[in-house]
Amino acid sequence: MAETVFAKIVRGEIPCHPVYEDELVLAFLDINPLSRGHVLVIPKATAETLDQVDDDTAAALGRALPRVARAVMKATGATAYNVLQNNGASAHQAVFHVHFHIIPKYDDGTGLGISWRIGALGEDPKGLAAAIADAL
Amino acid sequence: MAETVFAKIVRGEIPCHPVYEDELVLAFLDINPLSRGHVLVIPKATAETLDQVDDDTAAALGRALPRVARAVMKATGATAYNVLQNNGASAHQAVFHVHFHIIPKYDDGTGLGISWRIGALGEDPKGLAAAIADAL
Repeated sequence: MAETVFAKIVRGEIPCHPVYEDELVLAFLDINPLSRGHVLVIPKATAETLDQVDDDTAAALGRALPRVARAVMKATGATAYNVLQNNGASAHQAVFHVHFHIIPKYDDGTGLGISWRIGALGEDPKGLAAAIADAL
Repeated sequence: MAETVFAKIVRGEIPCHPVYEDELVLAFLDINPLSRGHVLVIPKATAETLDQVDDDTAAALGRALPRVARAVMKATGATAYNVLQNNGASAHQAVFHVHFHIIPKYDDGTGLGISWRIGALGEDPKGLAAAIADAL
């Protein structure tokens, strides 16, 4: 797996603007923000995509998200926000170290833009759900 | 807080296509999918937005996400996906009960569409990071 800029940030080799840290998680300002207060929440352990994250780290990430979101909203005054986590280049992942974006959405339109093209549930949703459940 | 369709699904009053369940979390197929295998991961406890979720529930959601994501990819063959969680109507939240979308992204383009308009970090990123950290 290639070395990423986030691994270097975790090790302190590249500076960041930190907002939160615990044993397993680090959060800091995105240097290319979509809006004011755009923060990244990442595991300290190296993992390319979310499916590769172990249980303890995943729980720590989950716990951190509401805490950091509350702080971002309090500090910025934002009242709406998106949490986004991309896996794979075709899904818009640019740095191959897991990261959750917390992106405030403001009345001026800054924040995450989303295109929502709904499809059909398909012919056999029961079978699809069963196939996913069986794969757990 | 208004009653939502997801609260009714948790109580079993409305059917769903479940894929995962534990003490605190339920996951099921989105009935208006953006792509095949689009799943919602929700807390059983009622919370309108992520910032209102308690620590234990947040950890359980965090733990569930990689597990369900692995199963969705295994069952669908998808290799890329987005995890999205919207808070507030202006941030595209439609059902006011916290939900994480796991949305496979396929080569045919189905999945989440993202518009990424980068802004500047602003004049005082250090001060902004400190303000967020202080609000934790």
